[in-house]
Amino acid sequence: MNELIYEQPLNEKVRSYLRLEYLAQQLTHCIEFDQGHNCFYPLFSLCEMTDRCDFRSDVLKDLDRQLLVLCKWLDMPQADKQQIKHLIERINQAKAPLQQPERIGIQLKQDKLLSALKQKFAMLGACCSFDLPQLHCWLAKPWNDRQQDLTTWLAHYHPLLEPICLLLELSRSTAEFVPATAHAGFYQQDCHQVISLVRVKIAAELDCYPTISGHRNRFAIHFVNAVQQKHSDKHINFLLATCSFSH
Amino acid sequence: MNELIYEQPLNEKVRSYLRLEYLAQQLTHCIEFDQGHNCFYPLFSLCEMTDRCDFRSDVLKDLDRQLLVLCKWLDMPQADKQQIKHLIERINQAKAPLQQPERIGIQLKQDKLLSALKQKFAMLGACCSFDLPQLHCWLAKPWNDRQQDLTTWLAHYHPLLEPICLLLELSRSTAEFVPATAHAGFYQQDCHQVISLVRVKIAAELDCYPTISGHRNRFAIHFVNAVQQKHSDKHINFLLATCSFSH
Repeated sequence: MNELIYEQPLNEKVRSYLRLEYLAQQLTHCIEFDQGHNCFYPLFSLCEMTDRCDFRSDVLKDLDRQLLVLCKWLDMPQADKQQIKHLIERINQAKAPLQQPERIGIQLKQDKLLSALKQKFAMLGACCSFDLPQLHCWLAKPWNDRQQDLTTWLAHYHPLLEPICLLLELSRSTAEFVPATAHAGFYQQDCHQVISLVRVKIAAELDCYPTISGHRNRFAIHFVNAVQQKHSDKHINFLLATCSFSH
Repeated sequence: MNELIYEQPLNEKVRSYLRLEYLAQQLTHCIEFDQGHNCFYPLFSLCEMTDRCDFRSDVLKDLDRQLLVLCKWLDMPQADKQQIKHLIERINQAKAPLQQPERIGIQLKQDKLLSALKQKFAMLGACCSFDLPQLHCWLAKPWNDRQQDLTTWLAHYHPLLEPICLLLELSRSTAEFVPATAHAGFYQQDCHQVISLVRVKIAAELDCYPTISGHRNRFAIHFVNAVQQKHSDKHINFLLATCSFSH
């Protein structure tokens, strides 16, 4: 069975983290497989997001909070000490590159090729050879060279993206998927603790997708029939995980 | 030798035609090879361009003008009558679908999936599963199904795109490439007739690209060194074609 996972952040910070993680995945995919000029869409989204907001202090705070939790866990008798120590090491390694004085991605702003492309990419269908002869020229370079360029550009964002992916990984690990049923396409839940991420796993064959809304400890899921593009009135079985951010 | 062609339109109409042709090529490529959600960038650019401006009357006028020219040619003794008749047939075939009363692409505006996606694609990195669960759901469909969807969407634009590609093909055929040299990276030319499209063919190994500016019967080419991203001061050999639109 082909299963799809839909994730809904319940606060702005996790929303941004998920966006950044998604862009990192897109770019990694563009480095693996030649996608032509499409690699610049996630790259420029990444530039703009990190330009608008410096996520470093948020990420550092979250990493420190995780460290505290993990250190407490070390004292528990049933804890898997080796795994916890490994996580503590990963977090400590992720902290150092975040503390550099330079803003992340600043080097890319000084890149003439990227600056020229960025301006035009915001315009409508403006990737023709007369709009961007430099793009045309870059795309004609051997794939190995372009792969190298992409790797270099993405590397500037690693100090931010790696800890964010780690934090999300930790968040996802706070809850297991449990079976749930949406009656007449609708499901809602109140939680005792504050949750920050709702995850829905559903069989692709059902041909419907969830629209999720919520805040802190309450959320609702409406399932939409993908063919008719309207609210489903069926009983829908799915798997649900409600994840928190700091354990 | 790996050669690159750069094209510069010298008027607004040809500029639009080239953009539309480029989008058609992009979309055709997306139908041949699975590019994930990237197919929507050229599709929405196409929607917006044809929404802003109805190119049909321009295209019809151009087709009629071409027909007149071709009919005159038929009377010339040295003409390749068979080829001319074939072109006349292609132009006549292209005219009929352009004369339908409905605006081109109107059907796509009524598509709920596309409308929802279009809104979000304009936003920054807004293709996450929580932004667009319907996109996530669509992308999980088998490639054959998505290919079919893309083919259907693009087909709505065929009546416009096919004659435009034909007109550009005819325009390109009005001039052959001839050798030229840019002294200290610069070249300019005055032409007797009105030209609408300047084409520059250059070896990719030279690692430089042309920036072309001009109007009607005069144009200038500056070659830029792609590595340093600044004006080249070298003598550059290239091939040049100056094309007109109505023969």
